Amino acid sequence: MAITFDYSNALSFVQQHEIDYFGDFVNVAHRKLHEKEGPGSDYLGWVNLPLAYDQEEFARIKHAAQRIRSHSDALIVIGIGGSYLGARSAIEALSHTFHNQMEGKTQIYFAGQNISSTYITHLLEMLEGKNISLNVISKSGTTTEPAIAFRILREYMEKKYGKHGARRRIFATTDQSKGALKKLADEEGYETFVIPDDVGGRYSVLTAVGLLPIAAAGLDIDQMMAGAAAAAEKYNNPDLATNESYQYAAVRNALYRKGKSIELLANFEPSLHFVSEWWKQLFGESEGKDQKGLYPASVDFTTDLHSMGQYVQEGRRDLIETVLAVKKPRIELTIQEDEGNLDGLNFVAGMTMDEVNKQAALGTRLAHVDGGVPNLIVELDELTEYTYGEMVYFFEKACGISGLLLGVNPFDQPGVEAYKNNMFALLGKPGFESQKAELLNRIAAAKPE
Amino acid sequence: MAITFDYSNALSFVQQHEIDYFGDFVNVAHRKLHEKEGPGSDYLGWVNLPLAYDQEEFARIKHAAQRIRSHSDALIVIGIGGSYLGARSAIEALSHTFHNQMEGKTQIYFAGQNISSTYITHLLEMLEGKNISLNVISKSGTTTEPAIAFRILREYMEKKYGKHGARRRIFATTDQSKGALKKLADEEGYETFVIPDDVGGRYSVLTAVGLLPIAAAGLDIDQMMAGAAAAAEKYNNPDLATNESYQYAAVRNALYRKGKSIELLANFEPSLHFVSEWWKQLFGESEGKDQKGLYPASVDFTTDLHSMGQYVQEGRRDLIETVLAVKKPRIELTIQEDEGNLDGLNFVAGMTMDEVNKQAALGTRLAHVDGGVPNLIVELDELTEYTYGEMVYFFEKACGISGLLLGVNPFDQPGVEAYKNNMFALLGKPGFESQKAELLNRIAAAKPE
Repeated sequence: MAITFDYSNALSFVQQHEIDYFGDFVNVAHRKLHEKEGPGSDYLGWVNLPLAYDQEEFARIKHAAQRIRSHSDALIVIGIGGSYLGARSAIEALSHTFHNQMEGKTQIYFAGQNISSTYITHLLEMLEGKNISLNVISKSGTTTEPAIAFRILREYMEKKYGKHGARRRIFATTDQSKGALKKLADEEGYETFVIPDDVGGRYSVLTAVGLLPIAAAGLDIDQMMAGAAAAAEKYNNPDLATNESYQYAAVRNALYRKGKSIELLANFEPSLHFVSEWWKQLFGESEGKDQKGLYPASVDFTTDLHSMGQYVQEGRRDLIETVLAVKKPRIELTIQEDEGNLDGLNFVAGMTMDEVNKQAALGTRLAHVDGGVPNLIVELDELTEYTYGEMVYFFEKACGISGLLLGVNPFDQPGVEAYKNNMFALLGKPGFESQKAELLNRIAAAKPE
Repeated sequence: MAITFDYSNALSFVQQHEIDYFGDFVNVAHRKLHEKEGPGSDYLGWVNLPLAYDQEEFARIKHAAQRIRSHSDALIVIGIGGSYLGARSAIEALSHTFHNQMEGKTQIYFAGQNISSTYITHLLEMLEGKNISLNVISKSGTTTEPAIAFRILREYMEKKYGKHGARRRIFATTDQSKGALKKLADEEGYETFVIPDDVGGRYSVLTAVGLLPIAAAGLDIDQMMAGAAAAAEKYNNPDLATNESYQYAAVRNALYRKGKSIELLANFEPSLHFVSEWWKQLFGESEGKDQKGLYPASVDFTTDLHSMGQYVQEGRRDLIETVLAVKKPRIELTIQEDEGNLDGLNFVAGMTMDEVNKQAALGTRLAHVDGGVPNLIVELDELTEYTYGEMVYFFEKACGISGLLLGVNPFDQPGVEAYKNNMFALLGKPGFESQKAELLNRIAAAKPE
């Protein structure tokens, strides 16, 4: 078992029978996922993905990553939302903390995840003199943020390498057969990879969307898929008493029903920061609808014990704290004795830094539970490609079950269109004329005289 | 006016008279801050700081920064909480996005803000071959995280430069006269800078705590103090009708009293990410006590419109969205026409990217207000050292007033001790013996048989 889930530190807030009562409902939710019969059932491709993925494409991904690594100093990954956070979370969790500054690494940068002219201009300045490749990731090819970035970077590459040279350095991850990016890729002859129709963005890290950048960073995607496959087997079990992924789903719903409204994902390793961002999208976008859902927030400890710690300890009591723990540190380091001991630290001399970190985590848990914050622990044995794959599946499965228990469709995101439609209207996109007039009237009416 | 505050997009959630009713109470809170008569009145040194700071020390800060820049490739800043977030927020907001990778810049790295052996080992590996200086920031010198990092880095530097050479490269920002770090610095002859007794960590960015690293990064701290001084003059005005910093305090309290419990600080420029982290500490640590306070969260847009956007649009309706906007972008960039127009983007060709970003912001605001999220706007004319200084003071003053209106002491942080005491006990720190026995009994009792 490389992942364990422990809710014993929530049992002063929710009783065991409350969890047990979820058992039969969890069975129903399990069946909906596995028989594809619930809301959002067109988007359940992720459920069996780790057990049956396209081996031919997987081999092509590894081959493309190898080519990128052989001729590029850096890969620029263009994508937003699910086409951004999965890859970034894996790469930051598992690579060297200063990956992009270490000799001999294929650097990975992200673009198209914002509309900042400062960001992209600085990116181009920094890339000066580097050999680069591009992986553009978009199902449609028309999402505003990545489309703008791709226009700019494609022109940059065609100037740098010529049209022909650029073609060999641009990789498109997109729809299998339709859409603007697929059409362009076919015309230009870019190598393409598939975003499956039945896997939503936030569940896509184990498809080409995540795997190509992750492999290009030098990580072992075979191990990652093996971990995910092990988890797919392990959590394919409708029994709440033994399925820890489902227990996580049940406990957070039980706490939500008694008034907890914010869930903090906390880590004690800074490299997990973007895993929390990925998790926030997974749960926030799956559950935040119909005016419901735990608000997903995150903290990096012990860093944020010195900023958000006061609130967690003594603020409004509507928090749940879920710790994403790692048992075995990637690197051990022993704290040395200091003769002067002016800093008074000699009581930890001879211990490893991780032992101190672990006692900080334990001390924090006890303090927060005392303060009225139920505590859940998702613990990985270690931080590797294998456990990352397992963790992804653990949370994906929990999220599907949790959303169904909450009574939402965990696989759509209708609310994401609202700002886009307004933006398109305001920018004068063809087809949005009447909405534009309406918005402009409204803005004019709101102006103070 | 380089900062404006606009709450017109909250007026369908809170009426003008509700804000007006705060007027006399704001006067009372104003007097408490300026006459130093309320709770936490020993920590009001920040109120007049920008108007009357130690010019001799300020000159020494600039001189030390100059020295660091002349002989070091990188400065390592050791600190946590308020001794970390202020400097980092300014440097990331105002420097090149890829500052640490650009030729000719003095790189800035942070340490002592976590207890990760992986992080600090990777940091040392990355520093291989660089000339470095160290700024250790700690009032007491015994805070666990920075103390561990300083033990490691001091040893590293003494090995690299010899004891004598290291002394000239280590700068200590600490208590004026007492504490472990002050004692060590005096013994070793490190140059020291002062953390004033009457300025708490989260209000300390405009003291040596923030200013030395900010100046070492090549930023103009004269301009930053000038902006803060202008704001100190401008917001030294008890009248709610004209003091926009106080309006922000009043509006967020009005919304809190009608059930809003989470405030999201949103930006549309990725370089503001750490300004949000700084803001989260400022407000979370000031207000999150006595089981009260808005939970401070943050989002980077448009990035997070594709992750947290669904929740903001349609999740639980207990959110306030405060946008930290920047009127004039640091860099302009025009979107080019594309002959094929496969991405369908030609309707924005000829516009600047920032015009698109601004319409995204406007479209988002309209969508979120329609969805039930009151919207506040704090707008900076531009993003410079001057406006950064203004913004810091705008939020600090608003936070003091807001906390007093909420009925808490905005200047203490009693809850931060809880985890520390547990950690010290668990680690066997002398003096914590009885607490250790108690905790171990408790843990043993909680173990499943």
